Amino acid sequence: MNRIDDTIDNITLKILDSSCPSKSKENKLDKISIKIKNEINNYKDKRILEVIVGGSFAKGTWLENDTDIDFFVMIESTVERKEFEELGKSVGFYALKKYKPYLRYSEHPYVEGQVNRIRINIVPCYKVEKNRWKSAADRSPFHTIFMQSKLDDFLKNQVRVLKKFLKSIGIYGSQISVSGFSGYVTEVLVLKYGSFRNVLQIFADYKPKYVISSASVNPKTIEKFDSPIIIIDPIDSNRNLGAAISSECLAKFVLASRLFLKHPSIEFFKKSSKSTKDIVCSIKSNLLIIEFKIQKRSPDILWGQLKRKLISISKQLQNSGFKIIKKNCFTDEQERAVFIFMIEFTNLSKINLKLGPEIFRKSETNSFIKKRGKTSLLIWPDNMRIVSLEERKETAIKAHVTQIIEKDIESSNPTGVTLDLRDGYSVYLGNERKLDMFVSSAIDFMIRDGEFIKL
Amino acid sequence: MNRIDDTIDNITLKILDSSCPSKSKENKLDKISIKIKNEINNYKDKRILEVIVGGSFAKGTWLENDTDIDFFVMIESTVERKEFEELGKSVGFYALKKYKPYLRYSEHPYVEGQVNRIRINIVPCYKVEKNRWKSAADRSPFHTIFMQSKLDDFLKNQVRVLKKFLKSIGIYGSQISVSGFSGYVTEVLVLKYGSFRNVLQIFADYKPKYVISSASVNPKTIEKFDSPIIIIDPIDSNRNLGAAISSECLAKFVLASRLFLKHPSIEFFKKSSKSTKDIVCSIKSNLLIIEFKIQKRSPDILWGQLKRKLISISKQLQNSGFKIIKKNCFTDEQERAVFIFMIEFTNLSKINLKLGPEIFRKSETNSFIKKRGKTSLLIWPDNMRIVSLEERKETAIKAHVTQIIEKDIESSNPTGVTLDLRDGYSVYLGNERKLDMFVSSAIDFMIRDGEFIKL
Repeated sequence: MNRIDDTIDNITLKILDSSCPSKSKENKLDKISIKIKNEINNYKDKRILEVIVGGSFAKGTWLENDTDIDFFVMIESTVERKEFEELGKSVGFYALKKYKPYLRYSEHPYVEGQVNRIRINIVPCYKVEKNRWKSAADRSPFHTIFMQSKLDDFLKNQVRVLKKFLKSIGIYGSQISVSGFSGYVTEVLVLKYGSFRNVLQIFADYKPKYVISSASVNPKTIEKFDSPIIIIDPIDSNRNLGAAISSECLAKFVLASRLFLKHPSIEFFKKSSKSTKDIVCSIKSNLLIIEFKIQKRSPDILWGQLKRKLISISKQLQNSGFKIIKKNCFTDEQERAVFIFMIEFTNLSKINLKLGPEIFRKSETNSFIKKRGKTSLLIWPDNMRIVSLEERKETAIKAHVTQIIEKDIESSNPTGVTLDLRDGYSVYLGNERKLDMFVSSAIDFMIRDGEFIKL
Repeated sequence: MNRIDDTIDNITLKILDSSCPSKSKENKLDKISIKIKNEINNYKDKRILEVIVGGSFAKGTWLENDTDIDFFVMIESTVERKEFEELGKSVGFYALKKYKPYLRYSEHPYVEGQVNRIRINIVPCYKVEKNRWKSAADRSPFHTIFMQSKLDDFLKNQVRVLKKFLKSIGIYGSQISVSGFSGYVTEVLVLKYGSFRNVLQIFADYKPKYVISSASVNPKTIEKFDSPIIIIDPIDSNRNLGAAISSECLAKFVLASRLFLKHPSIEFFKKSSKSTKDIVCSIKSNLLIIEFKIQKRSPDILWGQLKRKLISISKQLQNSGFKIIKKNCFTDEQERAVFIFMIEFTNLSKINLKLGPEIFRKSETNSFIKKRGKTSLLIWPDNMRIVSLEERKETAIKAHVTQIIEKDIESSNPTGVTLDLRDGYSVYLGNERKLDMFVSSAIDFMIRDGEFIKL
């Protein structure tokens, strides 16, 4: 095992070479940070009790080429929620007025802007005592202070390597579009297990309902958490950081951990450059594409709506009899979005076997015969069940999905993505058109999912 | 309910009109019976202890247009099995020498012939005490004597009506081609429940593992029987008459009983004359047909082999990914046989999703990745399982089934139907050829399965 350990150490060093920020970059960020903090402090309001710098920059776990600076504007806890949100927006727009600020939404609104290509977030939170949380951001200052006190330079660098690893397999970030491992989760893991490699070893041995916690936690508390992995927030044992991690991201981390530990390679840290052309060629006639324009809105809201709609359409297609192999939504977050379904057959069989109840269930069987008798081609008992063979009126998936979308649009109260779809959409199979850049990159994104497994 | 009871009584009377034998027919059979019995008795052999007439004729439950006379040649129980069989054949051929006798097989060989278009069976059995059975036919004389002593004229006629009912829905007869209700089972049921209608009422309320027994039976004995219905032989509580009844036949009887009791109609006793042309038209492109010549052999052996081969091919096609909706074998028992499969799609999708283990099962997941990694188009975790998308080389069902049959033929020790297939077979889809009479009637037979449900 020693040679493998050495290899991992070498890789770690190489990664740090490129991702550990340079002194000059640090100085640049320091300056920006001081400038913006001053701008915030210039907004005089006695409801604002304190302003602290948070996020990876404050904790010293940021990456050379992916940095943002988060400011937490701590507001008096007696301020009403609506007033709190207004104040947050107001101070944010004030402090970033020179930098084209815009509004974003998490649990509550905050303001974002770019200063010299560095993303700045100004986030309001309540200044409260621990565990007296009034808004979702109230824990963040505690996280910052906690990590600042716990992470030494070695651990900070281990966090950086882990972040890079997660990034390259596409599971870094708690935003809805990724639903992966947040920066804070990365820090919690490294703090708990001591190194990048140790974290991987833990995940390589993942078992369902795995619990990661620094302190001992009441089993009753654990019981109420329902996620494939449970990660207890060190500053709030009632909070499960694992709830935000999708099972797909968890599974990928488990697999990537095993594969990397077995055959450590710098390739795990690189975006693949393999062409997906041949694969696209093999599957494109099995792709159903629904393409449409979107109204711009907060990415988290947009992705959330897209993912829910994707699942809803997928379920309805499955109920109609289509076998969905893989599905994906994709958006440029500006003006376009697309749903892609990989389907076993893009046409249903024109004959359809309906399974009825076991024949000893008398009344159910009678109802089935009564209901199906008229429309069925054949009806017979098969293996002590009653079954009916019926002819399908419509077999094409394009017709089915159009019907699903139209029903949605015509519903009394269309919301979310349905409103975008109402303004128009195209439905086609992957082999029916020349695919443009946007759709091609969405397909590419779908295909590269899990690509590291074949490294 | 009274009107329904009256209707059933009327129908019963009408059925008896046509199926209760005429005096002249009875006289004719009596004469034949005496003549053949004399012929048997002319075969002088002191190992033959007694000859008795059995079957429906002896019991008075035969139908006007479907009669055979069974003779049981009772042989001394000390005779060795091989000698017993030789003696049985010898006496049979002797007694029927004027009537082109031929050999048939049940558990052991017996001799059959036609006398004035009446089928005569000469069956050897051992003369033993009850429950000291040495061959499968030894119980038959006991059955005959038992029923002769129990059935009065009313019950005999009720048996006739039940037989006609079972016949018209295609579930009368214990021969392998039907695997339905034997004449003796019909008698046992009527004897136990007192009338045709009462038997139907019992089956209409069928529940799994239903036990029908005249006497109380040791629960331990019942436990060892594994059939969807258990019918204890009144003359041997260790014998389950239900074992010979297929679940399809049982299910049909249950359904037919319910439907008839709800809406009694003479139609239940008639072969349907509805055309199946439209249905054939709707499904023929979903039919896979395997047609071949057969060597003539005992029908029970032939049907048994055909059914086993049908199931074996069906399983292999399912393993290849085809969804079989319905399957049937058919033979004229002379020179032709056919397998018919109704399939959802006659081509597989060219992409194939292979479900792997749950990813927390480390070594299974590793093996899956190792095995699939090279050939898979895509490999990714889906819902905490590892899955792989692969390209199929061969998608056509005709190619798949040909491969299955060829593998069989090339096996070191081909038997049964494989020997017939070795001499040649055709594989085609129902819409690829004009179907000849034989294949058409096989399809018709398949389609009419359960037709009474739509009456």
